[in-house]
Amino acid sequence: MLGEIIAIGDELTSGRVLNTTSYFAASHLFAAGHEILAMTTIGDEPELIGRTLQRALQRADFIIVTGGLGPTTDDLTNAAVSSALDRPATLYPEILKKIQAYGKSLPAGQRVSLEKLAWLPAGAHALHTEAKTAGYFLVQDGKPIFFLPGVPQEMEDLLLETVITRLAVWEGEEVRQVRQKVYKVVGLAESEINRRLAHLEGRDPRVRIGYYPVFPEVHVSLTVTGATGNEAEAAMQKYDGKMVESLGDCCYGSGGDTLESVVGRLLGDRGQSVAVAESCTGGLIGHALTSIAGSSGYFVGGVVAYSDALKERLLGVNREILLRSGAVSAECARAMAEGMRRVTPVDHALSVTGIAGPGGGSEDKPVGTVYFGLASPEKTQTFLFRFSGDRGQVQAQASQTALDLLRRHLLGLNSLVLIMDAGQSKKNRR
Amino acid sequence: MLGEIIAIGDELTSGRVLNTTSYFAASHLFAAGHEILAMTTIGDEPELIGRTLQRALQRADFIIVTGGLGPTTDDLTNAAVSSALDRPATLYPEILKKIQAYGKSLPAGQRVSLEKLAWLPAGAHALHTEAKTAGYFLVQDGKPIFFLPGVPQEMEDLLLETVITRLAVWEGEEVRQVRQKVYKVVGLAESEINRRLAHLEGRDPRVRIGYYPVFPEVHVSLTVTGATGNEAEAAMQKYDGKMVESLGDCCYGSGGDTLESVVGRLLGDRGQSVAVAESCTGGLIGHALTSIAGSSGYFVGGVVAYSDALKERLLGVNREILLRSGAVSAECARAMAEGMRRVTPVDHALSVTGIAGPGGGSEDKPVGTVYFGLASPEKTQTFLFRFSGDRGQVQAQASQTALDLLRRHLLGLNSLVLIMDAGQSKKNRR
Repeated sequence: MLGEIIAIGDELTSGRVLNTTSYFAASHLFAAGHEILAMTTIGDEPELIGRTLQRALQRADFIIVTGGLGPTTDDLTNAAVSSALDRPATLYPEILKKIQAYGKSLPAGQRVSLEKLAWLPAGAHALHTEAKTAGYFLVQDGKPIFFLPGVPQEMEDLLLETVITRLAVWEGEEVRQVRQKVYKVVGLAESEINRRLAHLEGRDPRVRIGYYPVFPEVHVSLTVTGATGNEAEAAMQKYDGKMVESLGDCCYGSGGDTLESVVGRLLGDRGQSVAVAESCTGGLIGHALTSIAGSSGYFVGGVVAYSDALKERLLGVNREILLRSGAVSAECARAMAEGMRRVTPVDHALSVTGIAGPGGGSEDKPVGTVYFGLASPEKTQTFLFRFSGDRGQVQAQASQTALDLLRRHLLGLNSLVLIMDAGQSKKNRR
Repeated sequence: MLGEIIAIGDELTSGRVLNTTSYFAASHLFAAGHEILAMTTIGDEPELIGRTLQRALQRADFIIVTGGLGPTTDDLTNAAVSSALDRPATLYPEILKKIQAYGKSLPAGQRVSLEKLAWLPAGAHALHTEAKTAGYFLVQDGKPIFFLPGVPQEMEDLLLETVITRLAVWEGEEVRQVRQKVYKVVGLAESEINRRLAHLEGRDPRVRIGYYPVFPEVHVSLTVTGATGNEAEAAMQKYDGKMVESLGDCCYGSGGDTLESVVGRLLGDRGQSVAVAESCTGGLIGHALTSIAGSSGYFVGGVVAYSDALKERLLGVNREILLRSGAVSAECARAMAEGMRRVTPVDHALSVTGIAGPGGGSEDKPVGTVYFGLASPEKTQTFLFRFSGDRGQVQAQASQTALDLLRRHLLGLNSLVLIMDAGQSKKNRR
């Protein structure tokens, strides 16, 4: 269906807050098979809200409105809707009861007058069954209009949980159900992912695949529909299997997974620990690992060996290696990882040394050249990658790659790597 | 003046790319004294582009259009404008000459057919004097319309360099000039900044101040206008001085400065070096410092002493301290910083140890409690801060605060801190 998204709030038109909710809605509606005609952002002005809504009704099949539903006086969306669509504000006792029950469970300081949230334009239906967040829908001129909170998390939850399903119901002759899943992919270009999934696209009208690059990863959404919930779930199960198979071991997780949360879970499950020896990433890998609550259970810490002196002094890297092969070499990466394991009792030590740029590159070792070491009880492996991009992008890719090398090692997977030994270079899957 | 912003691109309406250019434009236009009626995002559809433009002409005083100006076939904005405003596509030989000269300076692989960029709707004027980027303006129904590239950096440069000035010219009876400067503030709440600057607001119609929280910092914009360039510059100079004075030493820089670039410059100027001993920040401070190209000139590296074992082993923190005061204590922060300076010859060592949460807090040391150490040749200082927010926010504030403590030390400034010694706590400016 053809949709229109309207975001309301003075904080948006004055440039104080970046509007991410319209983007979120557009990407997920697109993945669910809809097309967005226009995304409009306007301030908290009742007349303009009314006019914008009227115009959208003339040209779109459905409308998503976000913002201005809260309990304070500058939240004017409901009043504007009542006036523009001639639907007098009406008290919904059922909603009021739920809101009041919810309000009582809040700490005293957070209890505000929530009664305003139960006054909605006539004909409105609450979206959240427990009325824990604002949000309703109504049908005007045979078209559904969804009113969602402006708070990104609340808006996103309601969109995924209720709006996409209700829109699917609207669309067909029969009641349709929708299921959606997002796959997280690392180490594969968008074009290669596209190639791998091409055979799943365009054959079955119930299936839609969306691509969302989130540097340095790519996220892929699978949306399936069915005439019933069971049918949708069966289709999801079938295509979920095909997706996982086609994406292969470059897909590290789904939904809310992050690479660092997955690595943390793998380490935790095995009762193993990791330390890092970082040069060109400067602490980024440690930062990623410690962004997860509870990471002290498996992350010991490490050394940011940015200077050669620290590589020698804290990691015991032999000066010979630094003189002969340089700090950016497989030998140095190996020595850093093994040195880290000597410093403290730890199962795995990851090391990174490379040239983030913009300076420091040579013909032999251009900017983006990064060596990795992974020392584990049984062996030490080294890897060479060549990344492109600016300094920040090289660092981000290096950090992500280091974590992925550990993930692959923990899962016993092969790593596609460039190995460089004693001046020789060959591309190899091992 | 009342403006409207129109962003064009299928990548925006399909949710593949987050629209940040409209936000950027709104925030800077607002700071320059304009009001944005609506921000609309539509796909690359000529008819819709035309209709959207016509409607904006009816209700706004000026219009900013971004996107769809490029040389490829899916860039349709110019054709849509020609048709909607009845301004036939016209070849501008002067622009073509400049584009071709610029094209020749590009590497062979990057040279595309740029001639399309010289075909503009009749009456268009190029915005970039050297025609290095697409972008033009024209006057329709007495109202200026600005067409800017969709590439954020190019769009932002043209907006700041040409659009804001031309709009100021439009507004008054006489030709007005505008100057704008952005101040970067750390360690002060937005409300406190507001209080400090209140005396500069609302008195002089030529002066406008805007506030932009960029967590954990606040950025403040000063926009001044004058009848001539000289007058605008004189006003800028006068109010710049007042801004700097009012913001005080919490303002660490302006324009493109970041806290890590400022700290790097201060260290570089003094020929001094820094190392870090990070616990709860997990490597974030090292990452921030190494995000600056050339940071190897002053950043040695450090230790991510996440576990107590590494604090002891690599930094020589006495086990007594860990048992008596705990890892989250002023004593431990001091020992970490001093230990780091023993490890390697370095002028300054920064240490951070705290509770990022969500778990691990106690009544005595709630989540957000962070101790800092700064060991320098002449002395070691310790600091205690209590941050609020989630895990990521506590880490971000701790990293930013550590860098700011070093900045203040290098500049000989006082630090507003909570000092806690031997169980006593007092708030003090020292």
